[in-house]
Amino acid sequence: MARTAYHDALDEVTSDLVEMADLVGSAMNRATAALLEADLTAAETVIAQDQEIDLRQKALEAKAFDLLALHQPMATDLRTVVTSLRMSADFERMGDLARHIAKVARMRYPDWAIPPAFRGVILEMNALAVQIAARTGAVIAEKNVAAALDVERHDDAMDNLHRRLFEMLLDPSYDGGIETAIDVTLCGRYYERFADHAVSVARRVVYLVTGEKLGDVRV
Amino acid sequence: MARTAYHDALDEVTSDLVEMADLVGSAMNRATAALLEADLTAAETVIAQDQEIDLRQKALEAKAFDLLALHQPMATDLRTVVTSLRMSADFERMGDLARHIAKVARMRYPDWAIPPAFRGVILEMNALAVQIAARTGAVIAEKNVAAALDVERHDDAMDNLHRRLFEMLLDPSYDGGIETAIDVTLCGRYYERFADHAVSVARRVVYLVTGEKLGDVRV
Repeated sequence: MARTAYHDALDEVTSDLVEMADLVGSAMNRATAALLEADLTAAETVIAQDQEIDLRQKALEAKAFDLLALHQPMATDLRTVVTSLRMSADFERMGDLARHIAKVARMRYPDWAIPPAFRGVILEMNALAVQIAARTGAVIAEKNVAAALDVERHDDAMDNLHRRLFEMLLDPSYDGGIETAIDVTLCGRYYERFADHAVSVARRVVYLVTGEKLGDVRV
Repeated sequence: MARTAYHDALDEVTSDLVEMADLVGSAMNRATAALLEADLTAAETVIAQDQEIDLRQKALEAKAFDLLALHQPMATDLRTVVTSLRMSADFERMGDLARHIAKVARMRYPDWAIPPAFRGVILEMNALAVQIAARTGAVIAEKNVAAALDVERHDDAMDNLHRRLFEMLLDPSYDGGIETAIDVTLCGRYYERFADHAVSVARRVVYLVTGEKLGDVRV
């Protein structure tokens, strides 16, 4: 009986993490819409809902702590719980990054922060961020090492897009001014960091499941 | 006898964290020198030594994990160990941020990334970052709530300097061009995030010691 409660609690930590992956993906998608459409309502929604993500992180931390205190898990279970604490912090931070993008949209409203020439790259970065969040959820839910490799691949693509933003800003044809250059620089960094945190989560799950670093795993 | 080993291990986790605080403060100070003096050797040193900080974080994580597995600490001790995991991740990230600043210096070498007009603010941001790291070490070593309030105060000052950087970039007199605006924007963000992580560490210690949020603590 106690053993069942214990395993329920362990499963709950995992399913909470999967939900967080889902929430931060949605938050980023809505934040991008806010940014590209100068949509104040969408921006406010992302900013308000980030508190929900923060609360989930705190709840997960409390659950994991109770698990440690009450059940004193051993070996792999202990590693799972300890790792979940770190992963929940990554998701919480991914939510913050979506909020930062929403705040750029809100700060420039009713203007658009991002000029037309940059929309395509930002849209691609968002699409990658959303996919990355979804694949990270799959990594956790299914202990799916192939999905973890997708996360790494998407992160490489994100880094390329991030570099392209800088190239566009430094191109002689750029005429958007300093304020826009600052906004693009910061938003670019937020998307890139979002992906970095997802990679960190994916790598931790793979290490947990296989005992190997992701770079060394053959699939 | 086993109890002594247990307490030694707990003390070691704390002293490791204090050392990390020290290391990241030094790293940031040297990174700033690299940035402001276009000092390639200093930049390379910071970049190389960041691996040392990463290794320390991994070692601390392993120690904390062993502590949980072997000694199954309870109550406050359990909370201390779990919190130390999160704090070590903050310090590791602070080391990354110093490395990022060193990389900006290296990328622009032999030129200076930061024009003369911005040196004063960057120097002030660095001084705050170094103080913040030192005060965070004191918070951990001495469970010093007053030091935690210093960290918060310095972080507020850091936020003000961060805003001043943007004001200077957006001032009509700014003539540094887009590349410099990007460098200043990113470096400003790195100093500000460095301080944010220190605040997060300080708040966790205060919560651990007093059971209260830092904003509610009277000293």
